[in-house]
Amino acid sequence: MMDLPSILLTQAVEQFASLPGVGKKTALRLVLHLLRQSEQDVTRFADSLTTLRREIHYCRVCHNISDTEICPICSSNRRDKQTICVVENIQDVMSIENTGQYNGVYHVLGGIISPMDGIGPKDIEIDSLIERIEPEQIHEVILALPTTMEGDTTNFYIYRRLQPTGVRVSQIARGIAFGNELEYTDEITLGRSIVNRTPFVG
Amino acid sequence: MMDLPSILLTQAVEQFASLPGVGKKTALRLVLHLLRQSEQDVTRFADSLTTLRREIHYCRVCHNISDTEICPICSSNRRDKQTICVVENIQDVMSIENTGQYNGVYHVLGGIISPMDGIGPKDIEIDSLIERIEPEQIHEVILALPTTMEGDTTNFYIYRRLQPTGVRVSQIARGIAFGNELEYTDEITLGRSIVNRTPFVG
Repeated sequence: MMDLPSILLTQAVEQFASLPGVGKKTALRLVLHLLRQSEQDVTRFADSLTTLRREIHYCRVCHNISDTEICPICSSNRRDKQTICVVENIQDVMSIENTGQYNGVYHVLGGIISPMDGIGPKDIEIDSLIERIEPEQIHEVILALPTTMEGDTTNFYIYRRLQPTGVRVSQIARGIAFGNELEYTDEITLGRSIVNRTPFVG
Repeated sequence: MMDLPSILLTQAVEQFASLPGVGKKTALRLVLHLLRQSEQDVTRFADSLTTLRREIHYCRVCHNISDTEICPICSSNRRDKQTICVVENIQDVMSIENTGQYNGVYHVLGGIISPMDGIGPKDIEIDSLIERIEPEQIHEVILALPTTMEGDTTNFYIYRRLQPTGVRVSQIARGIAFGNELEYTDEITLGRSIVNRTPFVG
């Protein structure tokens, strides 16, 4: 890597380069951009990060990020409180909210079971999910985890833990994505979408 | 754009998204990464930016970034102080230093003339370049600006300003880049590289 002409510059670039997907060249470009901003603007940038980190809350019920103890979705009286959609992270909540197709509440695991990365069931919010079923009189748990091996493992583990409660467990539909050509769809997806075909509604 | 579940989160994401080449989705990913770091780590990140912005110096001679009033290159006694290489920005200094092919000093313009962006000769370090020629007894000025219309305009402007001083003015070689196929080289580059052909050294 190139030698930077300043220790202060080097330190700032190293901080940026520690972010995921940011290489040294990009980090340098970003830091030089900040250098061209006013001192006040840079302070505002820095403060927004430290304030967020210091003051952020996670919803006590669903573990989504929130400025309040209970998030707006969990405290809304227009949501169906008896349906929980289980997701890996808060981006997934936002993606599902953006579809406008879901009116229940969420449960954010904060990760998925991944033995390779040393993440077990105790490291994510599974116990707290199980504990919600009875007091909140949950009717249905919708599993909306990634369609990967880790996602499948987590789905299966949660399903086994939920069985004693008698709650209905479903998972989001898997199949050919909208607009995709069969020719370019991978074999597993295509094979499963034939096995799990649904009645045609004409 | 998606609705974020927290005002603090929104503010931090907006700050990151104001950086060049960082979209809202990337900004969110970076902020969520920082949220997973310790409060101490986030403070260190933020401090590195504010400290840099507050304490950075620009070399009084060449305008490169420096922790000291005169940068290490300008104060080195192993550099040829009578040759100045004129570059647009500090990244260019680093790129040229990395080649190991240059032993003179630099002059960082901090931009190039671009009427479209409202950048004129007075907005960049051209006067200070002219003022260096006589007292520093400069023998040669090497123009190493981008090979764009703005670069050419700036080259020509500097050349005209330098003429009265009698200093030798050169520009970095233009032609086919190392490893490039002629077939995929643009017409202008290829055409010029024929016109400006150099003797073959066998």
